[in-house]
Amino acid sequence: MSYEFYYWPGIQGRGEFVRLALEQAGAGYVDVARGSEEDGQGVAAMRAVLADDAFTTPPFAPPFLKAGDRIVAHVAAILLFLGDRHDIAPKNAAHRLWAHQLQLSVTDFVQEIHDAHHPIANALYYEEQKSESAQRTEHLLSARAPKYLGYFEAAIARNPTNSEFVIGDAPSYPDLSFFQLVAGLRYAFPKAMARIEPDYPKIAALHDTIAALPRIAAYLGSDRRIPFNEHGVFRHYPELDA
Amino acid sequence: MSYEFYYWPGIQGRGEFVRLALEQAGAGYVDVARGSEEDGQGVAAMRAVLADDAFTTPPFAPPFLKAGDRIVAHVAAILLFLGDRHDIAPKNAAHRLWAHQLQLSVTDFVQEIHDAHHPIANALYYEEQKSESAQRTEHLLSARAPKYLGYFEAAIARNPTNSEFVIGDAPSYPDLSFFQLVAGLRYAFPKAMARIEPDYPKIAALHDTIAALPRIAAYLGSDRRIPFNEHGVFRHYPELDA
Repeated sequence: MSYEFYYWPGIQGRGEFVRLALEQAGAGYVDVARGSEEDGQGVAAMRAVLADDAFTTPPFAPPFLKAGDRIVAHVAAILLFLGDRHDIAPKNAAHRLWAHQLQLSVTDFVQEIHDAHHPIANALYYEEQKSESAQRTEHLLSARAPKYLGYFEAAIARNPTNSEFVIGDAPSYPDLSFFQLVAGLRYAFPKAMARIEPDYPKIAALHDTIAALPRIAAYLGSDRRIPFNEHGVFRHYPELDA
Repeated sequence: MSYEFYYWPGIQGRGEFVRLALEQAGAGYVDVARGSEEDGQGVAAMRAVLADDAFTTPPFAPPFLKAGDRIVAHVAAILLFLGDRHDIAPKNAAHRLWAHQLQLSVTDFVQEIHDAHHPIANALYYEEQKSESAQRTEHLLSARAPKYLGYFEAAIARNPTNSEFVIGDAPSYPDLSFFQLVAGLRYAFPKAMARIEPDYPKIAALHDTIAALPRIAAYLGSDRRIPFNEHGVFRHYPELDA
């Protein structure tokens, strides 16, 4: 089964949490919106799905995944779905629900990181909400990021297997997302992260472990990995990195 | 099985989406933080769970549900879990995942409604971020609320059974959440909703259908239903209701 994955081309954004899972699963997928319109792909193909009244389970927004005639939207739901089909989730049902809960906390954190540079409206440019962004980012870095990172650190520490991963003794999709959070926060806020990170050694070590997984390492070294930039969730605006 | 439900007492908040599901399921539950400390309940009991290092699957924040020795946090995950055990979700696995996806869009909408009165930081009072709230609420009411309501309206319209519900021909937990969204938006923004609502007749009709379900009607008439107030997600600040 080859999947069709749909997300905005040119950014990692929320879609990256899905790309990492597809790569680690070794699943075949087409990153449709990054393809060419000549091949029936590109953003036009993604817009066509979003506009198609024939779908009875329409996605609210990208990212979404097509698996045959099924459409699954929302990062956490896509990962729940992929976790049932590939070796990127725990086997045990209770552990699977725990993985999903962790992912929903990742979702909330990602939303807060995004809103730090868009506190008023997504429809406005960052430059139109700079002073509000400065205020919100201060709260993000002083209170919210430590709360989320501390929570994920505690989750790893309480893993009964004492492995370096968050569930059991193998990497599962929440670990991939923790890697992405650390990588993104380091890109966006290098000064603040240098100060914050030493408090979360397990998360920082996990970042390196995930980056070294053969499939992830190959992905990160390929041109499928879009570089961080100032259009996605994680943006480096030096004035926000106090 | 009687559940222990944990959420801040005194507000509907995010917890209300779970309360409505528990009520419609006819499930026995204790609303722990609303109980008395003499009985080992109250907010102290909730804080004790949040602080207990012995839980290997700790909740990030309320609401959360205890089912025996399992803890499930995040509204959408709690409803996914309850939907597997009670008659408030479709039977078919693909439909269940669709219900979950709809609920994740509800989660996103609820976050945006909350952030309209807290655009800078949850830790600050509304009064400390009033001008930013006015700006964000304008975007909420002019763009985001119509987008979400239009999406849910389309989802109902595309239900292949042509029922008044969003999935199949029986109420499921996303319908209960749509009821709560309409009730809350009407409370918070009566003027704006009077203007917006006629565009979404199926959602408005569903609100009335859900309110008339025997178990929901009994709940809404009981003192278990906390009145809306200016501490929860849906707050009526007349200056924001343009």
